[in-house]
Order: sequence, then structure tokens, then C-alpha cells
Amino acid sequence: MRDRRLRKELFLDGVTPALEGRIVEVTGWVEEQRDLGSLVFQVLRDSRGSAQVVYDKSRIGDAVDEVRTTTLQSYVYVRGEVVRGRSRKFPVEIRASEYEVLGPVRRQLPLDPSGGVPAGLDVRLDNRPLDLRNPRTSAIFSIRAKFLRAAREYLRSSGFIEVNTPKIIGSAAEGGADLFDLEYFGRKAYLAQSPQLYKEQLTMSLERVFEIAFYYRAEKFNTQRHLNEFTSVDVEAAMFDKRDAMDLLEGLVAEAGGAAIDESRREFEALGRDPPRAERPFPVITYVQALESLRAKGLNLAFGEDLGGDAVRLLAEEHEGYYFIVDWPLDAKPFYIQPGGNGLSESFDLMFGQLELASGGERIHERGLLEERLRAKGLDPEGFKDHLKFYEWGMPPHSGWGFGADRYLMVITGVNNIRETVLYPRDPTRLTP
Amino acid sequence: MRDRRLRKELFLDGVTPALEGRIVEVTGWVEEQRDLGSLVFQVLRDSRGSAQVVYDKSRIGDAVDEVRTTTLQSYVYVRGEVVRGRSRKFPVEIRASEYEVLGPVRRQLPLDPSGGVPAGLDVRLDNRPLDLRNPRTSAIFSIRAKFLRAAREYLRSSGFIEVNTPKIIGSAAEGGADLFDLEYFGRKAYLAQSPQLYKEQLTMSLERVFEIAFYYRAEKFNTQRHLNEFTSVDVEAAMFDKRDAMDLLEGLVAEAGGAAIDESRREFEALGRDPPRAERPFPVITYVQALESLRAKGLNLAFGEDLGGDAVRLLAEEHEGYYFIVDWPLDAKPFYIQPGGNGLSESFDLMFGQLELASGGERIHERGLLEERLRAKGLDPEGFKDHLKFYEWGMPPHSGWGFGADRYLMVITGVNNIRETVLYPRDPTRLTP
Repeated sequence: MRDRRLRKELFLDGVTPALEGRIVEVTGWVEEQRDLGSLVFQVLRDSRGSAQVVYDKSRIGDAVDEVRTTTLQSYVYVRGEVVRGRSRKFPVEIRASEYEVLGPVRRQLPLDPSGGVPAGLDVRLDNRPLDLRNPRTSAIFSIRAKFLRAAREYLRSSGFIEVNTPKIIGSAAEGGADLFDLEYFGRKAYLAQSPQLYKEQLTMSLERVFEIAFYYRAEKFNTQRHLNEFTSVDVEAAMFDKRDAMDLLEGLVAEAGGAAIDESRREFEALGRDPPRAERPFPVITYVQALESLRAKGLNLAFGEDLGGDAVRLLAEEHEGYYFIVDWPLDAKPFYIQPGGNGLSESFDLMFGQLELASGGERIHERGLLEERLRAKGLDPEGFKDHLKFYEWGMPPHSGWGFGADRYLMVITGVNNIRETVLYPRDPTRLTP
Repeated sequence: MRDRRLRKELFLDGVTPALEGRIVEVTGWVEEQRDLGSLVFQVLRDSRGSAQVVYDKSRIGDAVDEVRTTTLQSYVYVRGEVVRGRSRKFPVEIRASEYEVLGPVRRQLPLDPSGGVPAGLDVRLDNRPLDLRNPRTSAIFSIRAKFLRAAREYLRSSGFIEVNTPKIIGSAAEGGADLFDLEYFGRKAYLAQSPQLYKEQLTMSLERVFEIAFYYRAEKFNTQRHLNEFTSVDVEAAMFDKRDAMDLLEGLVAEAGGAAIDESRREFEALGRDPPRAERPFPVITYVQALESLRAKGLNLAFGEDLGGDAVRLLAEEHEGYYFIVDWPLDAKPFYIQPGGNGLSESFDLMFGQLELASGGERIHERGLLEERLRAKGLDPEGFKDHLKFYEWGMPPHSGWGFGADRYLMVITGVNNIRETVLYPRDPTRLTP
């Protein structure tokens, strides 16, 4: 047989009528097998497509018995000729002359990767690599990769440079709630919950920065939309005001998201989904308008209260797609958000229906005001002195946001549990695999 | 003055003769200032370039006094007309009609960002955002961003999908030495030292995966080439053998690295450096040949010993650029590396002179052999059962590698301390900022 495993050159989506008459080598896992006595048929699948293989004893000899006894989902190698197919589904098929089981299935599988028998989410997550043999599952991760790529390109073409800020940090940067801590060579350290302070600092020289990374919140939430290790697309820009930051965010969804959707026709077909399109400009309502609208629907919230589950459910009745809620109460926002007058702030959230996708705003860039806001939040400016120093060293006005990539993937792929959008999700009960 | 801060549209590298006669708005930090009495000159710099501004009292009025008292490195706004310049360095300059100090420098700076007075590395790292105003420093991070982008594009165009595997993991995956641990909702967890087991598992369905992320090693090394939070470019591919994996790695350096170098002419000029070019194919020596070559130079190492500092210094005398050392002793490599016979393994390291850049090889894909190798390494297969199960569920043959991006950046930028290649590096003594 082969004396050297060749680099795989032909994927199964490449087995097309153009190859008729050619000898090819393919690999993949056995998705279906039908034994018709004189002939055995296999449908093989790989990461890109599927193909039918025909085994005829007159051609392949006793190896046909090895084919017959191959368990479904084994990973196999086939060499053969591409010939006209017998079914509408496969216009060509491979008439095998060599066969080898490279990775046999020796035990009962915990789930049916072809999706014929649905499996529970926990079983799927415990066996994610196998779950990914289901084209619906792998479609989600293909879309994820395409979106993150498009996001990087969109931000780069908007003049931003990608940076990498530390995930192990020495102080509880934004106020310290819900941080994971660890021992770092005898000192206490934390996992970063966002790159907030770093990205703001960097605007003083790099001006426009972005980062796409995992961040950590030790929240005990166990909902359909929270993860303890989540992916955030973060930006910060010198000489951007609130409206500039909102424009950039709209563009991320409309342009980068739109490009990813356009490039994922096959994936959305596998998901049986027509993803929601983003039409610019997105509707904008103020926090105060949201309160009024809720009051008209019978929900009375006092100024300053957060818009919880009931509130966003009611708002989503009017706003099905993407919309901004702007000008939140100052006290509801972190210390670094620019005050806007009347107890409001220069801030915004991006929503999709009930789901909060992003949060951002204009930042304070004056040390005095920043210290005042820290104190108003009950934080000690002394704990932030290594950050505050930059605000006396030539800090430009700046704005930015953080965008929850996993939640956005829920929106476009249509899954209702955020765990479906992450390969190996982390929640309060799930630390493995 | 301006009633709204506009999104910055014009960067200082865009102030060219093409704009002569136009009114422009620019921002940046004050790099130089010369007061000639009737005229004040400023050189402004921003993240992309520099420009000269002229302030004439007859035009700008009393604001000229504000210009005079502006401290160097303050971040300022200027509106003015682009006119023919007075110096060779600036063919055009801006004749200012409006001026505003947006971010004043109010305290003595800890370093001179223009680089006129050299600062120690610790001072620079403690004040990285300011250090990045030095074009030499920012050049390194521009090259870094360009290389990581080119790496992603190279791997994508080679048929790989980018994945994100967890950084908080439930077990000490590769044997447990030197891991950071943390408490995860009452359980012990670790920070991932590599995506090794995850990326291998994923070859059974996604076939070709890559990940670019921070990883963690709790090693107490405090050398010029180790970090505790480092960036690795990791790949794993079904149906790749050792040579395929080496080809891909050569391509990463030659093609992606080459593209990044080609796109960074201005950056390498700022660094005053002609980066080393990678010529394919890279020289290949076996571990046994390396031992012989060392013996000829008077260094006797027994078979099985690692090639330490003295050894690689001697090898680097013959191999100045990129080269592979292949077929390492099996016992010197991790449990998942494919045995090669005669106590050797199907493995390789990529070196640049004395510096190890990458390590990889063919992996075991049979459960029995993998268990045997775990035991030979003193590890208990029971601790790996959630990983081993996939090796009976249709695992393809696969190969891969991990590539140290920070070290590669040392090679091309010519810095001799890896801390220069990371914005906020982490080492045993450095946890902040």
C-alpha cells in the first residue's frame, strides 16, 4: 500500500464530474454503508463534503471484506477511479481499488454524528470533536471563523491595529467584582475581564487599537447567554466620539457580519437558516425613551434602574432586530464613562431583540474627573495610580466598545444556547473537557 | 471652537503636497517646539507620521501663548491651511488658525518618547503606552500585527480553520509540570500551556485546525527568551506526515513572514534593520548528526541528552539562519509523538541560530500505543481517558506544531529581549502593569 502518507490534497467536495476518469486518493469517515452482496457502497464525509465509494470484489479483491466489517464513523483511506454516479445525489462516485482503515471505531459512539438520532447538548459538548462531524455543528464553527476573520479585516481597514494585552493581571482593574484569581509566583493575580484600561492607555500612542480574545468573569450565572470564558471584540479609538464609536459598531455588524454571512451560504444551508440582515442605520432609543415606552406597556421603572429581563422582553416587541439604547444613567455605567449631563452618560448598548451584544461609549480623558468618578463608585483612586498617570501625560479624547462575539454568533446562527457557539465552553458546572 | 469632536480622518502621514491650499484638522502629540518670537514651530507626531505646524500671532492671535506654554508630548488639535514648507524634512507644513490642547502633559515624563534620551527596558515596560510614541517601539508592534495577520491568512489559504480552545482547563493536560492553577467554582483548574490535546482531537472532524493565542507556563526562568504568557501559533492537520508539517512550517516563515516583512518597509527603516530572509528549503540535520557535529567541536553529549545552551551555540556557528533539527530521541519528546525506531521519534524543532522557534512532529493516532507511551512517561492513562476515547472513535493520522510568535518577532525585529515583542509582558517578577 502507500509507503508514505501523502499530504491530503483532495477533499471530498472536490470529487466532481471534472475528475471523471481520474485516479484519486481520498480520506474521510464512513457516514453510511450499504452491502448489496456483490457490491458495497459507502458514503464518506470529510471536513468539506461527502462522496460515494463503490467497492466491487472483482476490482478490490478480499479487501471488500475489510470494507464490510468497517464500523460507521471510522476514518478511512480510499484510492480509486472517479466514474459516473448512479444516484442524483452523487453525479460521480469513486470505484475503489485500494482501501485502508486508518482510524477504526472500536467502541460504541456516545452520539450519532450524522445527526439522525438527536443528542442532548451535554453529550455533544462532552464529545465535541465527534459532534463536529455533524454538518450543522461544523457550520456554526465555520461561520464563527469567517466572522472573526471579517471582523479583523473590517477593523484593520478602518485604521485599527490589533494588539494583545495580558490576560493575567496584577490588580482587579475595573472594580474587582467576579474575578478569577490565581497565585502568580507568590503574588495574587487575576484573569482579565476585559482589556479596558490597557486599550484606553494605548490610544495615547497607537490611537486606534482592537483586540479579539477570551476574557473571564467568575459570575455564577448559568443562563443560556452567559459563559465564564467568552470572546470579546474590543476597540478603542483616539478622536472618536460616541457617534463615531456607534458608527464603527454598526459597521462591524453590517459589513463584517454581512461579509461573513455572504461567504457562508453552504453553512446556512446546513443550518436551514436565513440569517437576519443588518440594515444601517440601526434604530436608536434613549434610556429615558425606553422607560417611557415601558411605562406605556405597564412596566414602571424608576430612573436609574437597569433594564432587566422583563424590560428587554417588552422592548424587543417593538425592536426585533438590531437597535441601540443610548444615554444610560451615569450611575449605571462604569467609572470611565463620560458624564453627559442630567445624570446621564455618553454611553450606548447594542441590542438584538432581547439580547445585549455590545456596550460602549465615550471615555473620560481628564484625570481629575476620572478620580471623581472612581470615588463616586466607591473605588480608591490610589489603586488605579498606575493607570491614572497616563491621564496627565497627553491622553487624547477617546471612545470604544466591547462586543460579545459568542452572542452575535447566537443571533446569526439561530442557536438559543451560547454554549453552541464555543467549541469547549466554560460555565459554573462545566470545566471539562 | 469645535462643537463636536470629529472622527479623526486625516493622519499626519497624509499631510502631503497634494493637500496644499486645503484647510485641514489634525491631532497628535507635540514632539518638538521652537519659539522664534514672532513664529512658533511645532513638530506633531501621531500613530502614522509627523508634520510641522507654524503658529503666527497675526493669524492665530493670543492662542499663540497657549502654544508657547504647551508641554512636549501633550496631545493637541490643530486646524489650519496646508502651505509650502520651509524645510527639506517637511515639504508642506500647516499654518495654524485654531489650536487646542486636548490632553496636556502636567507632570514630568518618566521617559523621553522621542528616543533622544534612551530609557531602560523596565522603565519602558512600566510606561508602555508612552514608550509606544517612539517610532522604533511602535514599529515592532506594527510588524507583530502584520505577521500575525499574515500567519492567519497563510494558514487559512492552506485549508486550515481557526479555532478557539479553552485557556481554563480542568486537568494538567500534558503532564502537569509548571502550570498555573486557580480555583474554578470550588474546583481546581489550570491555565492551558498549549492547545495540544484539543487540537489533536479536532483533526477527527475539522481535519485542519489552527489557533493563535496566549498560553501559560509557570516556569521560573527569567531569561531573555522566556515569557510566562506567550503567543503560540499552533496547527494540527489530519493526513499530514512529518514532512508535510515541516513544509507548512517553512511556508509560515517564508511566505507569511516574508509577506509581513514586505509590508513593513517603513517599520524596518524605523528600526534601522534589514530583516533576515528565509530561503526554502531550510537545512535539515538529524539529532544524531548534531551530536556528531558537536563531538567534532569538542562537546561530547550522550544519546538522549537535550541540546542545551552550549550545544546550540556551537550548532549556530554552522547554521546562522533557519534550520531544522529532526528525529529527536523518543524519550526527549512528549508522550504523543510518534516513535520512529532506534529510540528516535518523528519529530522536529525549527531553529534560528541558537533560538528554538517551533517544535512539532507526527502524532500517535492509535490508543494502544498512546497508552504505552503515557506509561513510559510515568503518566497514568486513566487521567487521560476523556482524551483517549477519541482514539477509538475514528482518529486520523495527524501531525502538527507549535510556533513561538514572540521569539520569531525577536528574529525579524532584531531585539535581543523577548519582552520587547510583547506590549505588557509577564515574567516571574513582572505582573504589572
